[in-house]
Amino acid sequence: MENFTAFNPTKLHFGQNVVNNLGLAAAELGKKALLVYGGGSVLRNGSYHDTVRQLENKGIVISEFNGIKPNPRVEDVAVGAKLGRENRVDMVVAVGGGSVIDSAKIIAICISENCDPWDVMTRKHLPTSSSPLIAVLTLAATGSEMNSVAVLQNSQTREKIGFRNDLMYPVHSFLDPAYTLTVPEDHTAYGIVDLVTHCMEAWFGFGDASLSDRFVVTIIQEALKYGPALMKDRQNYELRERIMWAATCALNNMTMYGRTSGDWGVHAFGHTLSFLYDTPHGATLSIMYPAWMKALRERAGDRIIELGKALFNVSNVDETIENLTSFFITLGSPVTCKEAGIDDSKKADILSLMNKNKEEGLNYKFSDAERELVLKYI
Amino acid sequence: MENFTAFNPTKLHFGQNVVNNLGLAAAELGKKALLVYGGGSVLRNGSYHDTVRQLENKGIVISEFNGIKPNPRVEDVAVGAKLGRENRVDMVVAVGGGSVIDSAKIIAICISENCDPWDVMTRKHLPTSSSPLIAVLTLAATGSEMNSVAVLQNSQTREKIGFRNDLMYPVHSFLDPAYTLTVPEDHTAYGIVDLVTHCMEAWFGFGDASLSDRFVVTIIQEALKYGPALMKDRQNYELRERIMWAATCALNNMTMYGRTSGDWGVHAFGHTLSFLYDTPHGATLSIMYPAWMKALRERAGDRIIELGKALFNVSNVDETIENLTSFFITLGSPVTCKEAGIDDSKKADILSLMNKNKEEGLNYKFSDAERELVLKYI
Repeated sequence: MENFTAFNPTKLHFGQNVVNNLGLAAAELGKKALLVYGGGSVLRNGSYHDTVRQLENKGIVISEFNGIKPNPRVEDVAVGAKLGRENRVDMVVAVGGGSVIDSAKIIAICISENCDPWDVMTRKHLPTSSSPLIAVLTLAATGSEMNSVAVLQNSQTREKIGFRNDLMYPVHSFLDPAYTLTVPEDHTAYGIVDLVTHCMEAWFGFGDASLSDRFVVTIIQEALKYGPALMKDRQNYELRERIMWAATCALNNMTMYGRTSGDWGVHAFGHTLSFLYDTPHGATLSIMYPAWMKALRERAGDRIIELGKALFNVSNVDETIENLTSFFITLGSPVTCKEAGIDDSKKADILSLMNKNKEEGLNYKFSDAERELVLKYI
Repeated sequence: MENFTAFNPTKLHFGQNVVNNLGLAAAELGKKALLVYGGGSVLRNGSYHDTVRQLENKGIVISEFNGIKPNPRVEDVAVGAKLGRENRVDMVVAVGGGSVIDSAKIIAICISENCDPWDVMTRKHLPTSSSPLIAVLTLAATGSEMNSVAVLQNSQTREKIGFRNDLMYPVHSFLDPAYTLTVPEDHTAYGIVDLVTHCMEAWFGFGDASLSDRFVVTIIQEALKYGPALMKDRQNYELRERIMWAATCALNNMTMYGRTSGDWGVHAFGHTLSFLYDTPHGATLSIMYPAWMKALRERAGDRIIELGKALFNVSNVDETIENLTSFFITLGSPVTCKEAGIDDSKKADILSLMNKNKEEGLNYKFSDAERELVLKYI
């Protein structure tokens, strides 16, 4: 095992009607809030109204910023931060999924430090403070509700990148699985893919961490069991609840302790698709993971087989990849670019951007030729 | 699943030489420390000297209290708290195992609140503040380094009881597995028993928590694999490290999320032995768990079998109990009172005290007759 620090200060409130405690938690943080959200789903599932009611009942003045898109943009974050500064808010309250919470994390830093958000993402500006953040999660997928990571894209530099800082843990997160009952079929599937691949990025990282490996397997097993069941019964609160908690555990640090880092190469490859074609994050991962494994069958073969044994009781690379691919297909998430509406003529553009940004993992590095090999399989 | 709050603010530093960061962490908390420890082991394993050096290098003034015994006493805690108050310390630094850290948690509260420690344990005095606590762990077993629980005994009231409060999380904990290399054979075994039974208390609690159940199984599997290996190779840093991290995870809340509570009946029974005969905590658990299962073979049969399947690939109560008992025997931990030096003539006294204190679990309740049944098996 590698030396590590286990730390996660987020107070996460889980279960039916937990948002009833939000007002009290917010009142301890101040009197003015920037409310950050994205599209209309939070209006339909009740989370927006519940949150507003909680804040208003405590006399907290709300400024609203609803400009966040899926695959969130740094330009929008800058606008949100400006609004928060102008209104001198004491806290940021994010209502939504990973895109909203990730954006709100950087908005909270920029409100406190009056800095440029892309400078934060690119580590040009190292933050030392943040406005406190409360998250209300409405999609089981991201893990952002209980970690210190944010991913944003920049259309000018043509990059989609992640940033991590201990300042970025939400102070409170509220997870009511009932808010996810109305998540449509495709995004329910993408969320399950996302949580499984978060675990796999940990598995393919480096450092010999036996207990964290066990947690990886066990969280994926939970998704293998309850994910397909949920796809057939999307109004089932109990299944929503199990997937929601599994998604949090998939990226709340517990799979990482004892490793130097996860790999994150598949996420990097997937980000290229999202950047170019606005492909949903989870869909990029179900396309890229089998291809990444095929390209790495020699270099990562032992580790792929070890995972296949633990998850599917198979003993070779091919069967592991087949089982994983079948699982993604069962969920209804695409496993080729074509299924995601990206035709073969686009592959040159994809490869070109992947090579320009030198996309690869922290553990498994890639040459241009190896990236081209991945592209053959997607 | 039951509604729950996931929260654990302890910053836990794990690995070789992590104590080198203690001085810096302590300096942020103040200028005067109460250093709490127990017997001579911390002098021999280097942890005491490393900690003192760290504090002194930052100019932190140290008051020492080394009065903590195994199966810690509330009387000693009162003396420690008095010393801390007299010296107006800014923090408590605990160096040792569970007894020391548990004691230090209550000392830290009593320093801050000038209250009676038994009033805290019995919930007569509800604390609202605590002096900050730093823990340096020297024994893999307790979990106290990353939770908010303390267990103390009181010779006057003839009780050994636990208390939990969010104020009691250590601010920092330092876990260097090298400090555990010199832990003798018996206490190494007791530590492994302790961590396994912490997981089992969660398993036999109530509430339907599928992912927490998986974590229970997986942490026990880690102990089944590396525990016996460690008993044969006690100087092996890598094995010490795996057991130390497993012990922390066994009681840092992650096996409890989604449940109403663990059971804790076996711990309650074990505390009676510790109170009467100063039997080491882990030894009481390896004696009591198989007996508790035998007494509950009807009421808890399904759950016992489910655990047996997951851990030992067996499908009935008897084989589950046999496998668990064999595991404890392999470690060298006693599975009968006799093996712990308590002869059969004492059983009336044990039963009498268990009945007086109405010892039982939160999930599985016990009548006097059922307690008598447990006594037959130990």
